[in-house]
Amino acid sequence: MTVLAAGVDVGGTKIEAVVLDERGTVVQRTRHATAHVVTTPPGSATADVIAQALDELLGPNVQVPVGLGLPGMMTVSGRLAYAPNLQSANGADFATLMAERRPGQRVVCVNDADCAAVAEHHAGAARGFDNFVMVTLGTGIGGGIFSHGQLVRGHSGFAGEIGHMVVDPRGPRCPCGQRGCWERFASGAGVARLAREAAAAGRLPELVRRHGDVESIRGEDVTLAAAEGLPEALAVVDEVGWWLALGVANLAAILDMNLVVIGGGLTTAASLVLPAARQHLAGMVEGEGARPPIELRAAECGEQAGAIGAALLASGTDD
Amino acid sequence: MTVLAAGVDVGGTKIEAVVLDERGTVVQRTRHATAHVVTTPPGSATADVIAQALDELLGPNVQVPVGLGLPGMMTVSGRLAYAPNLQSANGADFATLMAERRPGQRVVCVNDADCAAVAEHHAGAARGFDNFVMVTLGTGIGGGIFSHGQLVRGHSGFAGEIGHMVVDPRGPRCPCGQRGCWERFASGAGVARLAREAAAAGRLPELVRRHGDVESIRGEDVTLAAAEGLPEALAVVDEVGWWLALGVANLAAILDMNLVVIGGGLTTAASLVLPAARQHLAGMVEGEGARPPIELRAAECGEQAGAIGAALLASGTDD
Repeated sequence: MTVLAAGVDVGGTKIEAVVLDERGTVVQRTRHATAHVVTTPPGSATADVIAQALDELLGPNVQVPVGLGLPGMMTVSGRLAYAPNLQSANGADFATLMAERRPGQRVVCVNDADCAAVAEHHAGAARGFDNFVMVTLGTGIGGGIFSHGQLVRGHSGFAGEIGHMVVDPRGPRCPCGQRGCWERFASGAGVARLAREAAAAGRLPELVRRHGDVESIRGEDVTLAAAEGLPEALAVVDEVGWWLALGVANLAAILDMNLVVIGGGLTTAASLVLPAARQHLAGMVEGEGARPPIELRAAECGEQAGAIGAALLASGTDD
Repeated sequence: MTVLAAGVDVGGTKIEAVVLDERGTVVQRTRHATAHVVTTPPGSATADVIAQALDELLGPNVQVPVGLGLPGMMTVSGRLAYAPNLQSANGADFATLMAERRPGQRVVCVNDADCAAVAEHHAGAARGFDNFVMVTLGTGIGGGIFSHGQLVRGHSGFAGEIGHMVVDPRGPRCPCGQRGCWERFASGAGVARLAREAAAAGRLPELVRRHGDVESIRGEDVTLAAAEGLPEALAVVDEVGWWLALGVANLAAILDMNLVVIGGGLTTAASLVLPAARQHLAGMVEGEGARPPIELRAAECGEQAGAIGAALLASGTDD
């Protein structure tokens, strides 16, 4: 077996690492908990875990291309410029940190949703599509954009921060400082918030009965009840689907992609939200009827998507 | 002199045609009024005027590459799929219409804002920028996107319809069918609407005094009064600048461009709105401080930008 590359996906909770063979198949994998320890320089604890995972998979002295997928705004030179969900690594220079831990180790560092987009393009739901957007639904919304078959990175490497597109300037405050960012409505945080609003407005009487009071209803409760078919919960899911469709329609106006791949941690919710979003999207796109429909598909590469995409990017096999 | 190409920019009011020499300099030009005559097949009257302009500039039998810039959603095959401001040409197949009028004439058809982006990139405000967005402010908002030095066209050729990004789902109805599209706030129509709202709310007492009543205040009145320094008019301009900045911040989140070029017919208004937009933008971009500032520049190619860009695209000199 020839090793093509290794990829590491650094999430807010776990670090997933894979090794790909020359056909792009995962031949080894490991998983570690993310270290949230504030260090000088920033990101040292995270880099220790990454190095440990690579030592485990490759041995300390084997050099293969390594890609890192990181949750935040990655510069093209490998600095994590802004990482709201990995504060201890904010500003970290992973190129240097990794070279210190694995002598001579060079790494390609890319935003995690960009990595997922590359994986889905290479071997998943976006195979054969030149213009698509990867939307990762988790606590927030991440994005990876392919245009004319190429990953759109932007001037500094920060393209695809689609969750911070403002869709309601009078909407709820976002940790980024703006109001009404898309991820306040159509992510895990969005489900939780819309559920709280619905409960407070008396639109979730059965769930309030089950859970005792309005305050103890969480997003997952609504998702689970919707999966069971409870109409009041389905109404909240429909609202989330409406917001998801609105953002997708905005992206379509700007980018004219014909596919959106929905991935990320919110798998159960996504399977419910997707059909609702499809219905709403039809009426939202400019010049509908004059353009091909925009497909909304679930991601296919699973929770290793980010690590696989990082490895593919490192190996140069990113199309 | 060797002729490089001809370009024609078809607007809702006028048709501007230019001939470029091999250095990309405009060596001939002509202007005609746009024909708004409903015909079968659609666009015949418009094609007649375009052919007349080309005959005038090139003679009927000279074949050079010809580019057409058209106001709407252009397919990559040259069909004007959706043109809200040129209804008589809705659905027109300009490749066929032009070949009928000038035997053997092949044309490259592109959205007019895309053409303007190409012109600004080649010889205007975006020279040397690989990642920028052209924003044309007229009655609505058009857009042209460059990513990694290439024009982003999208799957069908419809990319860059940035004016129809929804920024306020409870906002005013847009002719496209949605509510709260960006162009309802930051375009000529936006200035007019925000002026009406301000007048009705009693925030334009001096303008009401000058014009007799609330209903007779037009967008231009506010722009002119703001240019004179009237504070109540400047407040409306500031509001328009805020909305302009909001849309630019959204585009930056998605595309990470480091330049926005503002062009289009709204020149006087733009010169007032731009400084306001710059101020507001600084606080609106995610991870500010971690990224280079986004420049907002006025377009440099003037009212021939669309025609020049169309000619450059036709000649293959589009970078």
